[in-house]
Amino acid sequence: MTGKKVILGIDPGSRVAGYGLVEESGGKLTAVGYGVVKPPETKDANNKLKYIFEAFSEIIAQYNPDETAVETVFFAANARSALVLGQARAAALLPALLAGVPVHEYSALQVKKALTGGGRSEKSQVADMACRILGIKVTPKPEDITDALSIAVCHIHSSPLKRKLAGK
Amino acid sequence: MTGKKVILGIDPGSRVAGYGLVEESGGKLTAVGYGVVKPPETKDANNKLKYIFEAFSEIIAQYNPDETAVETVFFAANARSALVLGQARAAALLPALLAGVPVHEYSALQVKKALTGGGRSEKSQVADMACRILGIKVTPKPEDITDALSIAVCHIHSSPLKRKLAGK
Repeated sequence: MTGKKVILGIDPGSRVAGYGLVEESGGKLTAVGYGVVKPPETKDANNKLKYIFEAFSEIIAQYNPDETAVETVFFAANARSALVLGQARAAALLPALLAGVPVHEYSALQVKKALTGGGRSEKSQVADMACRILGIKVTPKPEDITDALSIAVCHIHSSPLKRKLAGK
Repeated sequence: MTGKKVILGIDPGSRVAGYGLVEESGGKLTAVGYGVVKPPETKDANNKLKYIFEAFSEIIAQYNPDETAVETVFFAANARSALVLGQARAAALLPALLAGVPVHEYSALQVKKALTGGGRSEKSQVADMACRILGIKVTPKPEDITDALSIAVCHIHSSPLKRKLAGK
């Protein structure tokens, strides 16, 4: 037992989905991989779903994460865009679920609080804090990446994982 | 070449999803299988997605359909329910997409017109017509099943499949 844990953070989306893999070892957090999944521009929404599913299947196979963290969706957009996002979200989460990797959800507020201590921080402050915690010198773009890394950090900083890591 | 074709009709849903398999052979349509996919009642929406994905994977493996047909979603529900439906829809369609089974979409109006000739028919009339075409004596319940069968029949009655079957 090394005590190492790898958390996959996912920021789902139909045009761009961000992912970030954060390793926790002895209390130190490192970003071991991050990027975006960007399906080819096509009118065929189903092909995008297949692309997203296959990309996240590869990410799971490559990094073998112990747990996954994703933001709880709560927003006031219209039903059409909610449906499209829902489909993309399922395509991104299913590879983890099928591989038996537990999926944890956090609200945007929980992520903000976990990283900056307050619920009123700007998105950019949250991104900067995630990068500082992870020792990333230049903040990656697009923000889908820092959103994904932030939620992975949030999960590590949250109980019960935090308690487990602290041996409590 | 037998000229046989099996179409999988899907009526996606997060609590109940209907499926119906319609075989076309020499102009005759037969329902070779139908039913519902009903994930266990749980607050864990992700577990439901996994269940739906695995159930439709089994359906694809068992019936090996040539094509899939599903209703285009268009409705005025709130964003929350649209998101939930979107996730369930992706979980139901992905097994077909991953198996390389083409997915075709039809609007509710197209389904009504294909089965009853008019756009103002009641849902029950559409269901009854689907059962008559398929030689099913007692209309199966819940209506998710007849919705799924209807869209499979709609697909077979629609071009370009119809043209292909007619050898044109």
